Amino acid sequence: MHPFTTEADKAIGAIGEAELIGRIRSWLGPCTPAAPYGMGDDCAVLQKKSNLSAIDPVIYGKHFDDSVSPQDAGAKLLKRNLSDIAAMGGKPNDALLALTPSANLRLDWIEQFIGGLREVAERYGVTIIGGDVAEAPGEAFIAHLTITGFAEKPIPRRGAKTGDTLWVTGSLGGSIIGKHYNFEPRLREGQWLADHGSVRGMIDLTDGLSKDLPQLLPDGAVALLNLDQIPLSYEAHSMAQKSNQVPLYHAFSDGEDYELAFALAAEAEPEAFLKAWKNEFELPLTCIGQISTVSEMSDDRLLNSETQKAISFGNGYEHLFIRP
Amino acid sequence: MHPFTTEADKAIGAIGEAELIGRIRSWLGPCTPAAPYGMGDDCAVLQKKSNLSAIDPVIYGKHFDDSVSPQDAGAKLLKRNLSDIAAMGGKPNDALLALTPSANLRLDWIEQFIGGLREVAERYGVTIIGGDVAEAPGEAFIAHLTITGFAEKPIPRRGAKTGDTLWVTGSLGGSIIGKHYNFEPRLREGQWLADHGSVRGMIDLTDGLSKDLPQLLPDGAVALLNLDQIPLSYEAHSMAQKSNQVPLYHAFSDGEDYELAFALAAEAEPEAFLKAWKNEFELPLTCIGQISTVSEMSDDRLLNSETQKAISFGNGYEHLFIRP
Repeated sequence: MHPFTTEADKAIGAIGEAELIGRIRSWLGPCTPAAPYGMGDDCAVLQKKSNLSAIDPVIYGKHFDDSVSPQDAGAKLLKRNLSDIAAMGGKPNDALLALTPSANLRLDWIEQFIGGLREVAERYGVTIIGGDVAEAPGEAFIAHLTITGFAEKPIPRRGAKTGDTLWVTGSLGGSIIGKHYNFEPRLREGQWLADHGSVRGMIDLTDGLSKDLPQLLPDGAVALLNLDQIPLSYEAHSMAQKSNQVPLYHAFSDGEDYELAFALAAEAEPEAFLKAWKNEFELPLTCIGQISTVSEMSDDRLLNSETQKAISFGNGYEHLFIRP
Repeated sequence: MHPFTTEADKAIGAIGEAELIGRIRSWLGPCTPAAPYGMGDDCAVLQKKSNLSAIDPVIYGKHFDDSVSPQDAGAKLLKRNLSDIAAMGGKPNDALLALTPSANLRLDWIEQFIGGLREVAERYGVTIIGGDVAEAPGEAFIAHLTITGFAEKPIPRRGAKTGDTLWVTGSLGGSIIGKHYNFEPRLREGQWLADHGSVRGMIDLTDGLSKDLPQLLPDGAVALLNLDQIPLSYEAHSMAQKSNQVPLYHAFSDGEDYELAFALAAEAEPEAFLKAWKNEFELPLTCIGQISTVSEMSDDRLLNSETQKAISFGNGYEHLFIRP
């Protein structure tokens, strides 16, 4: 659905900022707190104790296009932020919603966008406590969501050590076929992993293994990966048939898997760990390799454990690249 | 200074997202925490106990143009968010910075923008703990900042009652001449007012008295304003000479004063209150009227206390209005 209209009476510009905020409040229903606090005040008042915060946008023309329903776009905005909370092992709390639309945004489009966001907010118990509306230049729709959450012991990306094993949840690659909307943030899994105590570095896979996995590595360390063990999605195989690439390429380069990758302490028992996971979750969990060091200096961070050679399946999704 | 360039090697697109985040981190220096937490992780970890949060953007072509230095634009982004914390009576803590530039943004421009933001962050003890970088469509620069803060007892906009007196700090109008960059968020004043205990509704003046003052009024109440008492700035008088409007028009309509307006409980002693203020601050504080009710129903919320007639000096700054 195309977000913009030339019919002035069907656009948000026809009702102005105050009325738009009032409507968003009513569309959100029980997901936004009653006055005196909540949307429309100078600050939002956090409802719960929080120590985590993240901000991520969805942008028309970049993160979605006319082929995507406004509900799916709104749902994705919250889900991608929830995935960041999951990657720290946290529970989500409150959110701020900042909309930057042009005045010709369709009113029925933004109502459905908020509806999709609300559905996810209700499912995960997130409250939209405030935000902002500002007019974008040109014809544009940009929405930022700031999420807050809490983790007793947040798991950073950089906490792993040499000898730790590397794991991923679910299966990877080919998200463009549909998974980049049709995913669930791994919140319950992330919390379980944080509670386990032996997970000491974690990230959610948004830009592909090539770009995301090196973030888990200590300075100077490499990942020795068992390529036979990378869990490939059905979509990775489908994509490979069209792209003339091997399915592994898509797991390393596509991004937007929204699965968790993490390092398990070398001291932990992998078999017992996997058994405990399987008692709790149906979602596959796979050990894909180990953190190691190599004698010769190189920029290559991901190596094939069999050949010790660099893995080169593209560089993951690169942002802000000026295309020729 | 114009933010964009056609010379690819001088633009942020030449270095990519990861390198840009690294440079922002170094430009921020002591204002951003060391690893493992801080910019670049999935979530930021809040450094201090917070119960307040707000998000506000600056947008090229809307909030600033080529006549504004990048330093001033960066400083304004943080200051307008700090003004929201001030309006709740809070102290600022941590911030997230979300940049949405097009890839042709000048590297030297964004370095200076961050420099201006850092100067304000250092002055007010704010730490930039995380954020996001995403590419804007077209040629654009949008920056959102999410601020967190803490107030023992946050002052909402809507807490005032009939009979309360209405007050404003500083002087109003004509901000476009320079004050919309050259302002200080009224943090110390807002905290003092919250501590005083008799202030029960507060807002920062961003859209002009016409639009902001009604936000303080209980349902069905009006503000009886003593127009002789509205504190007019030098700039309001300057503007009036060019605009063919009275100076009062600019106090009601211009916006971006970043002063505080608040309601003092009817039970409080105005003279003792003003004396206590003057012991603490040089900044003027003025009682401009009182909250009241009127017998006949009307949409007019701001009345001249002498004539009981509606005050009509424009409607304040209206966002998202489709211009013909």
